[in-house]
Amino acid sequence: MAEFPLAIKNLIAAFERLPGIGPKSAARLVFYLLNTPETYVNEMARLLVAFKKDIKICKECFSVSEDDLCVICQDSRRDRNLICVVERAIDVMAIENIGGFKGIYHVLGGVINPLDHVSPDDLKIYQLIERIKKIKGEKDLEIILATNPTMEGEATALYIKKRINEIDDSIKISRIGSGLPMGADLEYADQATLSRAMDGRRDI
Amino acid sequence: MAEFPLAIKNLIAAFERLPGIGPKSAARLVFYLLNTPETYVNEMARLLVAFKKDIKICKECFSVSEDDLCVICQDSRRDRNLICVVERAIDVMAIENIGGFKGIYHVLGGVINPLDHVSPDDLKIYQLIERIKKIKGEKDLEIILATNPTMEGEATALYIKKRINEIDDSIKISRIGSGLPMGADLEYADQATLSRAMDGRRDI
Repeated sequence: MAEFPLAIKNLIAAFERLPGIGPKSAARLVFYLLNTPETYVNEMARLLVAFKKDIKICKECFSVSEDDLCVICQDSRRDRNLICVVERAIDVMAIENIGGFKGIYHVLGGVINPLDHVSPDDLKIYQLIERIKKIKGEKDLEIILATNPTMEGEATALYIKKRINEIDDSIKISRIGSGLPMGADLEYADQATLSRAMDGRRDI
Repeated sequence: MAEFPLAIKNLIAAFERLPGIGPKSAARLVFYLLNTPETYVNEMARLLVAFKKDIKICKECFSVSEDDLCVICQDSRRDRNLICVVERAIDVMAIENIGGFKGIYHVLGGVINPLDHVSPDDLKIYQLIERIKKIKGEKDLEIILATNPTMEGEATALYIKKRINEIDDSIKISRIGSGLPMGADLEYADQATLSRAMDGRRDI
């Protein structure tokens, strides 16, 4: 087998390290870039460097930001008594894209996962508790636990609920709804999802 | 909806322009890069720039190269009377990866496609004919037409066959085999593939 130019092999290897991109996709991307104008590829390189330099973590909610505080935490129209707790900054993006949420966020930076050696101390749970301590007693205070409906996400939500209850067990804590996704078919739903959908039934 | 930092939005937009990467995958990649070390991201940026600067097109076969001639065309052990004609440089990589091919290549740079305004003159067909003119009459000369088994690939192969016959109709021209892929199931094969598999049957 002939050796391909090092510049191509190295770039393929770099793309392969990205999640969801295997050797074939990586090669396809690189050969696609070979036929794109140099300006586009150089612009992409510039954006990569700029992005790592410019993006900070918000001091308040630990989401992505250009300043010390992110645009959401800076926005005075946001309801500071409604905190949505999520695993990652990308989840903030997903919820913001719906467009209706008026509260603020708290990014944990992951979930409790003993197998991957992630303990509560590795997450921003202490910081969440401190934030809640400052606003406890406020009217209409609500903490929405929006970690993923996975085993780790559920366990993390339960752990946080217990910790919040230790401060004040009258604080309203909710968990995002889980059940059948819109457009789904009962027939093909897995047992866990269907069971959750039955438990989560609502009056109409 | 809150505005995300520009550095993130721009990078997502850049990733979205790559083939097979939609808005959600692009966001996932960017947020993945957010958590990778800066050195890796900067290295990727450097590789992108270097790759566009270093990669040339081989003067002989039009595949990718670091020099005027690619490693395959430079290799004296390669059989110069066996030319495999492919659409793109990535196809050279695919065939080289099998490991058994001892001939050389010719990269057309695409296929004849009137709908996309790609005519024979836009491809390296003239250059292929010139290469063949130089070696016609050699012993065991064979041209393998390995364009994709698509409508355009088949038409391009037929066109090239006609052009080669005009030089010398005794030159051996072959087309890569098509039929059922290994591991496939007759029951699920499409009609065109099955019909091609029947036509392409061989004595065993």
